[in-house]
Parts: sequence; structure tokens; C-alpha cells
Amino acid sequence: MTNCIIASTSTIHGSKPLEYLREALLELYSGIDEILFIPYARPGGITHDEYTSNVNIAFNKINKKTVGIHTFSNPAEALKNAKGIFTGGGNTFLLVDQLYRNKVIEPLKNAIHSGTPYLGTSAGSNICGLTMQTTNDMPIVYPPSFKTLGIVPFNINPHYLDPDPNSTHKGETRETRIKEFHNLDPQPVVGLREGSWLNVKGQEVLLKGKLSARIFEQNKTPYEVEPESALSNLN
Amino acid sequence: MTNCIIASTSTIHGSKPLEYLREALLELYSGIDEILFIPYARPGGITHDEYTSNVNIAFNKINKKTVGIHTFSNPAEALKNAKGIFTGGGNTFLLVDQLYRNKVIEPLKNAIHSGTPYLGTSAGSNICGLTMQTTNDMPIVYPPSFKTLGIVPFNINPHYLDPDPNSTHKGETRETRIKEFHNLDPQPVVGLREGSWLNVKGQEVLLKGKLSARIFEQNKTPYEVEPESALSNLN
Repeated sequence: MTNCIIASTSTIHGSKPLEYLREALLELYSGIDEILFIPYARPGGITHDEYTSNVNIAFNKINKKTVGIHTFSNPAEALKNAKGIFTGGGNTFLLVDQLYRNKVIEPLKNAIHSGTPYLGTSAGSNICGLTMQTTNDMPIVYPPSFKTLGIVPFNINPHYLDPDPNSTHKGETRETRIKEFHNLDPQPVVGLREGSWLNVKGQEVLLKGKLSARIFEQNKTPYEVEPESALSNLN
Repeated sequence: MTNCIIASTSTIHGSKPLEYLREALLELYSGIDEILFIPYARPGGITHDEYTSNVNIAFNKINKKTVGIHTFSNPAEALKNAKGIFTGGGNTFLLVDQLYRNKVIEPLKNAIHSGTPYLGTSAGSNICGLTMQTTNDMPIVYPPSFKTLGIVPFNINPHYLDPDPNSTHKGETRETRIKEFHNLDPQPVVGLREGSWLNVKGQEVLLKGKLSARIFEQNKTPYEVEPESALSNLN
């Protein structure tokens, strides 16, 4: 049974990485000591080793350790054997490119569908949607496709940001960008604010955290849903 | 001789579209009555006709009219015959996708290199760089390539936005995103603030407007350049 946490961000303001997710992670990874970490998104261009080591510090606090997928000669096999998986944030284009180039899109999808507990944050959450086309990231690399895992039947916009009513900036707001997406594509988009996450258990998708999420459906006015709302029928 | 205005935005706060560029446009399009308009970026998903008609209002104020490239059965020929060209903003992925699919990347490049006066704003400026990989836009469509016109020997980040020192948001700042780009690609990036533009005359590239621009070079600390600075040697 699919068992995932799809989080807007790894870190919320004034708190250490993953700290706000502590209880949820203890439940997700219950009975699991070692987590397979996917560092492909490489925030700030740090090495895969550095990124894995940073993540390890956060996981040690809940008495777990992480091992980077890049240390395995057969990453598909590593995913198959993993007891738990975590994909961290960074650049979604880079992450998706590396998932395709290392031929692990299908193995990752299969592992998640077969019930391996999965945590995604930011870019690692974005890939749980149908496509990566509602990422906020810069296209620093050209991936073979924008299609992603489709663990949930919609797209995700992590780090969702409300328009600033005092802004004089003429760049598009997040809402405008998602509206542009809906001029071409029909799938709904869940704008997940920092501190929110989705809990996926089998077919059930629940909004968690203290904040509401903003839902964008084609040809509809965007609307808010409250924590504990089911999003399973959003498709 | 190449003759371009590459502007961060079409519109600055408190002013009408293109108003702040009035004098520069009168010089750029001197002696030209009709401008070929490329509406492919379609901001907000409006039709090509609607977008062209909106732009026409702004151009009427300087006694010029615009005609949309989408009204020609042979857009490559239309570019060849154009006396002046303007590519408006919207979504850069959509613009680049349409330029490729309508087979006008080369014709547009040739027209600009042969001296047809060109104005780009926002997405229409982004495409004047080597690649579109420092756009701020959402990847709402998968273009055949990220390679763009290379009118200037660097990349452009339009609507450049300084980090907000009071922000508690954990999404990447513009500077962090460009740093991520430089982990993979060597070409410099010019962060053009709203109200700034580049004046390209042959090999000469000058920063115009009242604001400084922020220059990003691989393995260097980002720095500011003042208006009237030459950027021709940035490559």
C-alpha cells in the first residue's frame, strides 16, 4: 500500500531541517533504520556526498541513518531493496534529468506503489505529481521529459506563495503562472504552503500541517482546503 | 548592423505598457510605421489576436501599428520582410516552443543579424540570450530545445529581483537559482531589473535605464554594473 509524505519544504522558518515533520516521519519510517536517499536535486550544487551527509544529521536525530543512491552501482536494485526512501529538494529539472538518466523513474514508482515508505520534500515532492510542470525552479538542464511519477492524480506546486498585495514587481505571481499552466493542461494543481504536507496511504490523500492549501482546477476560481481534507478525488 | 532593445519588462509600476521606453522606441523604430509582433508567449492565455490588439494600443501612441506574425501563412517570410519586430512577454517555454514549431528560430535570428530593429520584453528578451535556461517561468510546455537566439553572448534573467532580507520563505532566491545554473553552465547571466534594458548596436551592448544590473559569472561573486556600462565583453 502506497505510504508517502509529500512535503512542501524540508525546513520551515525558525526550525531545523525535517524537525517539523518529526512525528510524521517516526510513523512513516516505523521499524526502519536505514533510508535510501536520492540526492540528485543537489541544492546549491553541493556534491551528492555532502548532501547525503547533511541529511544524515537530520535523520540521526530520529535514530535513523541515510545512504545515498549514488553510492550503489545499480540504483534500480537499490530502490527495489530499500526499506524506506527520501528524495530531497534542490532543482527539479536536475532531479528529473538524473532520474531519467539513471533509469530509475520506473523502479522508484514501483517501489512506492509496492509500499516502500517514501518522503519527498520540495523537488522530491514535485516529482510525485503527474508532471513537473508546476515547479518553481529554473530550467538549468534539459531533461528527457517533464513526466514524473504520478503518485497523486494531480500536480504539485511546493513552496506555494501567496501574492504580495504591496508588491510593485511585474513578474507573474504564482497564481498567474499556474493559470498559464491551465491554459494548456487540465490536471489540478495543489499549492502546498511551507509547513504543509500530503499524507498518502493507498488511495487516500490527506492534507496535513496547520495551514490550508490552495487548489487550482482548470476553469475554476482557485480555492482553499483545510487541514485533514481528503484530496483523493481531485483529478 | 544588429539594432535591439532587450528590456526586462514591458511595463513598470505606475506606468502604461512601453511608456518608459517611449524615447528609446522612437529611435529604434525611426522611420518605420508597421511592426511585426510575435505574440507566441501569450501572457495569461489570451489569444494571439487579443495580445496583438493590446500591444497595438501602446504602439498607436507613438504613431505605429503592429501586425501579428500569426496572421501570416508564411511566418518565416513575414520575418524576412518585416521593417521592425517586437516579441512580447508571457511564458518563455511557450514562446520558445512556438518559435521552434513554427520554424522561425533561424529566420528571426537572421532578421535581427541583418539589422531589422528588434524589441524584446521579458520572455521576448530572454530569447536573446544563449539559452532560455535563466527564465523565471513555469515549464508549462516542453519545448524541443532550450537553445535560443544568442543575440548577446550571455544569458538574461529578466524581472531580476533582489532577495528580500525580511523573507522567511524557504524557496530559492533568484541569486541562488542562478548560482545553481552556474554549477552546470559557464555562460554569464545579466540580471536585468524592471526599468532596465540593453541597447544592442552591432557588437556593442550598453546597459540603459536608471538602475544598475546584477552580473553573475561562474565562480565569481555577483556584482553590480551601472547604467551606460558596456557588456559586450561579458562572455
